[in-house]
Amino acid sequence: MDLNVPLPVIGIVHTGYAELEATPIQAGLNRAEQGTIDIAGRYQEGLDGLAEFDYAWLVTWLHRLAGPGREPPLRHVPFLLRSQQRTKGIFATRGPKRVNPIGLSLIQILDVTGPVIRFAGVDLVDGTPVIDLKPYVTRFDRPAGEPRCGWFDQVTITDGITPARLAPPRPPA
Amino acid sequence: MDLNVPLPVIGIVHTGYAELEATPIQAGLNRAEQGTIDIAGRYQEGLDGLAEFDYAWLVTWLHRLAGPGREPPLRHVPFLLRSQQRTKGIFATRGPKRVNPIGLSLIQILDVTGPVIRFAGVDLVDGTPVIDLKPYVTRFDRPAGEPRCGWFDQVTITDGITPARLAPPRPPA
Repeated sequence: MDLNVPLPVIGIVHTGYAELEATPIQAGLNRAEQGTIDIAGRYQEGLDGLAEFDYAWLVTWLHRLAGPGREPPLRHVPFLLRSQQRTKGIFATRGPKRVNPIGLSLIQILDVTGPVIRFAGVDLVDGTPVIDLKPYVTRFDRPAGEPRCGWFDQVTITDGITPARLAPPRPPA
Repeated sequence: MDLNVPLPVIGIVHTGYAELEATPIQAGLNRAEQGTIDIAGRYQEGLDGLAEFDYAWLVTWLHRLAGPGREPPLRHVPFLLRSQQRTKGIFATRGPKRVNPIGLSLIQILDVTGPVIRFAGVDLVDGTPVIDLKPYVTRFDRPAGEPRCGWFDQVTITDGITPARLAPPRPPA
């Protein structure tokens, strides 16, 4: 079953990246870099109160990976496992190749000036459409203790890492 | 600008709740209760590896709040501020009334058996469509220190709280 729905674009992300392979893979691994979000004028009022939060979930439509016939294989090799060529189920990865190309970035809010949000933590290509923005609330978003994080617990993850630096993609066998 | 896209439904959430007003407001506040997700057969392979994570982000389509002409006001009174009747911008709240009715629930994975995920932390009505599932990764999803959480830092939040128990909704003025 497919839902066929309009998704209003509430804003556009601006970053210094044009290509997926050169873009850092997680906002939390790239806090040194900044980007901006231009919220569409008609939604600006919805930002009231956001500047009082340090972090927010930026929910995006990964437009470069969307489109008819673009549904990815259900098991694939995540960027972080390229050197080992291990596959994982798509719902056990955080990569952008998903059934629905919805991105979730934990951005650090620096300031909100009119319709413009300046943030730290860049993991998106320039021009990515924003479909939601939710404030980070520790009480809701931080699990107790030190949760098991599957295969991520066994890989070394370096700040600022990009797919291109991890290993070039291999052609399909 | 609206994106008009197909959103494949990857599964359906089953809980004991039929009405929004009686449904607890955040998974993290209602860990005592369990639900299940039935993943559609054709996506089951994508679950490979998920059982090794303690938590996951359940991304849902809040179907009860979707539909033409259902776009909510950009400032409104969140459930948690009903007793005070204070308004906040929609992007500074976690409520289900959003421009795009996309839900984000931090579920605790109990087990994965074939296409069925059993989880703790119920904040959804029965029958809610699932549009994505991403594993919780501490390195990506936990901000450093104790971030400011805006107006949430000033309210008392009780486990298991529901909109109906917070205060009945008021009719529009």
